Amino acid sequence: MDRAKRVDNLREVMKGKHLDAAVIFNFENQFYFSGLKAITYSRPIILVVEQTKESLIIPSLEEKHAGEKTDAALHIYHEVAGRGSTDYHELFDEVMDGIEGDKVGIEFGSLPAELASSIQEKGNDLIDIQGDIVRMRAIKSDEEIDMIKESGTLVSGALKHTLEHSEAGKSELEIDYHGNQYLFEEISKNYTDSTLDYFVMSPSGIERTNMPHVFSNTRKLETGDVIIHSRQVGLNGYRAECERTYFIGGPTEEQEKAFKVMLEAHLAALDFIKAGVTAKAVNQAALDVIKEAGYDAYVSHRTGHGIGIGQHEEPSLRFDNELVLEPGMVFCVEPGIYIPGVGGFRHSDTVVLTEDGAEIITEYPRGLESMIIK
Amino acid sequence: MDRAKRVDNLREVMKGKHLDAAVIFNFENQFYFSGLKAITYSRPIILVVEQTKESLIIPSLEEKHAGEKTDAALHIYHEVAGRGSTDYHELFDEVMDGIEGDKVGIEFGSLPAELASSIQEKGNDLIDIQGDIVRMRAIKSDEEIDMIKESGTLVSGALKHTLEHSEAGKSELEIDYHGNQYLFEEISKNYTDSTLDYFVMSPSGIERTNMPHVFSNTRKLETGDVIIHSRQVGLNGYRAECERTYFIGGPTEEQEKAFKVMLEAHLAALDFIKAGVTAKAVNQAALDVIKEAGYDAYVSHRTGHGIGIGQHEEPSLRFDNELVLEPGMVFCVEPGIYIPGVGGFRHSDTVVLTEDGAEIITEYPRGLESMIIK
Repeated sequence: MDRAKRVDNLREVMKGKHLDAAVIFNFENQFYFSGLKAITYSRPIILVVEQTKESLIIPSLEEKHAGEKTDAALHIYHEVAGRGSTDYHELFDEVMDGIEGDKVGIEFGSLPAELASSIQEKGNDLIDIQGDIVRMRAIKSDEEIDMIKESGTLVSGALKHTLEHSEAGKSELEIDYHGNQYLFEEISKNYTDSTLDYFVMSPSGIERTNMPHVFSNTRKLETGDVIIHSRQVGLNGYRAECERTYFIGGPTEEQEKAFKVMLEAHLAALDFIKAGVTAKAVNQAALDVIKEAGYDAYVSHRTGHGIGIGQHEEPSLRFDNELVLEPGMVFCVEPGIYIPGVGGFRHSDTVVLTEDGAEIITEYPRGLESMIIK
Repeated sequence: MDRAKRVDNLREVMKGKHLDAAVIFNFENQFYFSGLKAITYSRPIILVVEQTKESLIIPSLEEKHAGEKTDAALHIYHEVAGRGSTDYHELFDEVMDGIEGDKVGIEFGSLPAELASSIQEKGNDLIDIQGDIVRMRAIKSDEEIDMIKESGTLVSGALKHTLEHSEAGKSELEIDYHGNQYLFEEISKNYTDSTLDYFVMSPSGIERTNMPHVFSNTRKLETGDVIIHSRQVGLNGYRAECERTYFIGGPTEEQEKAFKVMLEAHLAALDFIKAGVTAKAVNQAALDVIKEAGYDAYVSHRTGHGIGIGQHEEPSLRFDNELVLEPGMVFCVEPGIYIPGVGGFRHSDTVVLTEDGAEIITEYPRGLESMIIK
């Protein structure tokens, strides 16, 4: 089973850094190491890993769920009087008092100040292990890749349904819904005992496609619109992403030119990817195409990002990332061009890096002819 | 406008605590004070409030969106070489170097250790202002209450659609989808330029209703099932919640008894609520009914929680919360009973506290006859 191996890997990192315990607070990392994907709301969960034991501090609401997923010793806080501790700070203090030694690994970018302080106040040193966990998660196992491929099939199908149901007069939320409907039906039919995460947005029109991240709203599509439809699907916690830029009616001359440059950059990056190249070289491969066309002033984000349990993981395909790509990495390739008064243009596909090159696991036509809805 | 007033209120808190700056990292608090509801993924946003200015550290992707929403000075980090800073830590350091004084308010439960450390390393004292912001957000303005009421209407309608489409053979995900469909259509039709957040889960059967928080999955409903359908809807960022426990076919004798006790506790709490009582007294009003029936061992969570921008806010209707209820508070009332081998039982309604008492803003029948689907 993957999960025991992951905890072993974490313990190897801990040995290398002479750590006596690791405190895991980020919920994606908790899922990675424990298998517990809880709905936490306002009730924190904390995982503490030592060489010989694991402790999980959880609200009583999650006791049954956690018991099914993990072998960690459960430290439960309650909301009802007379059952035991009602304060997770107290349980965290107890667990931290029990560790042998005084070197504690934490995720510096996730652990809240109050918990970091309480570890320090006990005389422990804090050592950042966030980067180690990020690197661990960046190389996916065969089991993880299989799960991401299922999500790749689903997200492509959902995107197809949204595009095929797009027409002038329908709102962004309505077109999203057609793809969502497909997802719900497909998953209910074919995947027993599965969970589904999904994210979707469809900024439409010149103004809104120029904002790479906005929630879909009630704006109605109009003839002449450019639209960026963006989706992620996470089946059982593992995600894939697919995005397409398309047109209702057809593009203007300027839009057609920008679209074609974006597509050429997208394909250039996909073509360039192989094990042994750096993340920044992939970014540059896309950027070279865009620069050649004179559009580099309209680039506002990196060429892509890793994906898995998280929406954005390593490898970050960014100009300053020296990371060398390895088999087992999974990432989205999505160079974008955003021109005020003209529109935003971005496709995204998810690829798995193998010994043989990049395997694209999302599938929908990319060319301009397929991207025009009459 | 509400938002300027909220920042004024924060500045009053800062004066009272002699703070020179407040660092706002929690994204709900950022929305509360700035109006910016960004899709951040892996790119942090940080708001810094001083007496005479506001600074917002944001990724370049959010520049346009932020410019429309806030008057704060924007400090933008980039992902492309040659545009300026590419590191939010650097921008945060610059903003913190520019503050006058050395007392900095932070949200102890939200600000990551790395940012807290970097404030401290500059010789500043950290003072917790999380509780102050929680108290501020607990009293809603008329504008906020109007928005929550709209969400109350929508969440009730979505719940109705899911219940009316529930039948043996359909999965949890499929019944969720019927209510979602209603939401998308209704919002596209009636609310221009609006955003929608929603959360839904429908644990079904004896085992799964005993877990108060699980994601809906592909389990198919069976005749004889008990189901807890739970929904939140947030129109333009303001949420309401509605939940109902219902049966396919009909309850067993034990289930009927537990249902009736839950309903009586729910109504007792609703009846008890008025301005001037404590949060813990409301919790007790529900618990008294449950205890009288001999079911208190099967209670695992508080009677309710505040709601608004967040899924869970103050007032927490919990045994140890001395907070006195005031007009303008908005909260969910949801006492639950979870009996192994029998099932879980919980209704939730959202109420607004006014001078005249509790106004229930979610609406769907509660009685057993209405909760049996043949």
